[in-house]
Amino acid sequence: MPVISFAELSERVEAVLRKAGFDQLHAAALTRIVCAGERDGAKSHGIYRIDGIIRTLQAGKVVPDAQPVVADDGSAVIRVDAKGGFSPAAFEAGLPHLAERARKLGLAAMVLNDCVHFSALWPEVEALTEQGLAGLSMCPSYSTVAPAGGTRPLLGTNPIAFGWPRADGVPYVFDFATSVAARGEIELKRRAGETLPDGWALDAEGQPTTDPEAALGGAMLPFGAHKGSAISTMIELLAGVMIGDLTSQGALEALGTTTLAPRHGELVLAFSPERFAAGRSDPFAQAELLFAAILGQGARLPGQSRHRIRARSLAEGISLSDDELAGLDARLLA
Amino acid sequence: MPVISFAELSERVEAVLRKAGFDQLHAAALTRIVCAGERDGAKSHGIYRIDGIIRTLQAGKVVPDAQPVVADDGSAVIRVDAKGGFSPAAFEAGLPHLAERARKLGLAAMVLNDCVHFSALWPEVEALTEQGLAGLSMCPSYSTVAPAGGTRPLLGTNPIAFGWPRADGVPYVFDFATSVAARGEIELKRRAGETLPDGWALDAEGQPTTDPEAALGGAMLPFGAHKGSAISTMIELLAGVMIGDLTSQGALEALGTTTLAPRHGELVLAFSPERFAAGRSDPFAQAELLFAAILGQGARLPGQSRHRIRARSLAEGISLSDDELAGLDARLLA
Repeated sequence: MPVISFAELSERVEAVLRKAGFDQLHAAALTRIVCAGERDGAKSHGIYRIDGIIRTLQAGKVVPDAQPVVADDGSAVIRVDAKGGFSPAAFEAGLPHLAERARKLGLAAMVLNDCVHFSALWPEVEALTEQGLAGLSMCPSYSTVAPAGGTRPLLGTNPIAFGWPRADGVPYVFDFATSVAARGEIELKRRAGETLPDGWALDAEGQPTTDPEAALGGAMLPFGAHKGSAISTMIELLAGVMIGDLTSQGALEALGTTTLAPRHGELVLAFSPERFAAGRSDPFAQAELLFAAILGQGARLPGQSRHRIRARSLAEGISLSDDELAGLDARLLA
Repeated sequence: MPVISFAELSERVEAVLRKAGFDQLHAAALTRIVCAGERDGAKSHGIYRIDGIIRTLQAGKVVPDAQPVVADDGSAVIRVDAKGGFSPAAFEAGLPHLAERARKLGLAAMVLNDCVHFSALWPEVEALTEQGLAGLSMCPSYSTVAPAGGTRPLLGTNPIAFGWPRADGVPYVFDFATSVAARGEIELKRRAGETLPDGWALDAEGQPTTDPEAALGGAMLPFGAHKGSAISTMIELLAGVMIGDLTSQGALEALGTTTLAPRHGELVLAFSPERFAAGRSDPFAQAELLFAAILGQGARLPGQSRHRIRARSLAEGISLSDDELAGLDARLLA
């Protein structure tokens, strides 16, 4: 497989997005997210996403030169109005305010409103850990998940991500959907002719099913039964309703399809561990004891493999298939 | 079964706790929590807890007249040093500061340090909803849960609770352990001679087991596999390490037993939906649409049955067994 350096890939992706019609601000911010995914082996959030980004643009569902507007009233809530642009540029516009406020007040929140969302959340909480802050991020998506005990799609796959800074540069980061599986995983099972594990999905009549086809026409289920369903509902409330933005149901109704990126909001919380610990103990050293105890019994930390792949990608370059490279080139020449 | 009014029960429980040695502050705060549990049919957090409260006192592991000290530096973080007393009085001391700060800044946190913890978390987030605020509360417990992929107890059953205010007085509230089951549920299975469902526990060698006896000598498992494990780890970090207090492992090591209430800390976040929505929409009205959609497909809202039982308890009184009433009387006469 051809190997390409991270810098070279970034340059090429940015050129593709510029050519597609995004301004410099958005092309650069989108490139950072897409290439971070590719670099970390998170293929489902890597250059594979470029098609969807451009499809959303061509459908007129994202503003390619939206100027995010930061509203900072000195409180613990930093607001960024993305003005219908993709979320990464809006997040980057608000990040310095969020970090400053968390350091000053101990705790702060960033509200993203009216953004078109496609990014995984881990790059955002990781950006907070790089500033010595813990981060918690969440957003609705599209209503494709039934609440526990329900029969029809209502909740989204509603991701939640958390990051904790570590001195060695590899933060503790998790980022997962609150559905038991991603829609893509069900699609893969369908293509492979496999059945689904119990507890993944309901059919169109609201009955449990292990048939991927029936599941895609029905509803996914939350992870962890009623507990995961409650967390997913909390995400609808905090990162949809509370911030004056759309729920997963509202986002789907507004757009009418799950094939384009959803337009809604996002909530990011930032915590200053130094401020919270207030000199009682060293929170970073104490956290390392916890991580060592987890690793010491053979369990893994989330994000470990992503960082292993990242180190290799930065040292040796990123392997892309011929098709992937040709796809980028075709976009450049189009 | 004898029926007793909520007021009468409260009076009797408070007298029992006063007689046991708690000062007025703690006896009253503990009574509110214990009787709220009994009133709501949450028997495992009702008067059943009185024995453990008094056992912890008699073991010298709680300060019965501790004066909680609130430290409020004007930031988003309100600190309450419980001075080794039970948590409810410390929570009540900090609550007005937390609510005021959340209204002023949009978002605020309360850190409880050095408290002896026994309360369920739902009364706390419910107290925030009564002030029109959303609340999120979490704390470590004792290390009885293995991280996903691990073999030995490390994490606690680490509860998390969330509350959202509703105009009709019955807030949306969930409160659950991040272990797949409570230790008490395993104990009940043991007594009934039943086996455990798959995925509940490991034996002392770290192997999956369905034998309750082996489970009690081994480790419980988190809910939702690696996702629940990640959330439980986050709770150790945010509500243990970050606030300069003990993790579940630290709390167990410090006390050496799980039969007394643990001494550590707790984190409570309070959100002002009005501040977060900033006039974009009515968050309370939008939340009602979400709840109606959940109920409309036959699913339930968490806390519903608690509030149904509460209404009955307040209207008709609380039924206690003869043994339960005799237990209270014996404590009073002792």
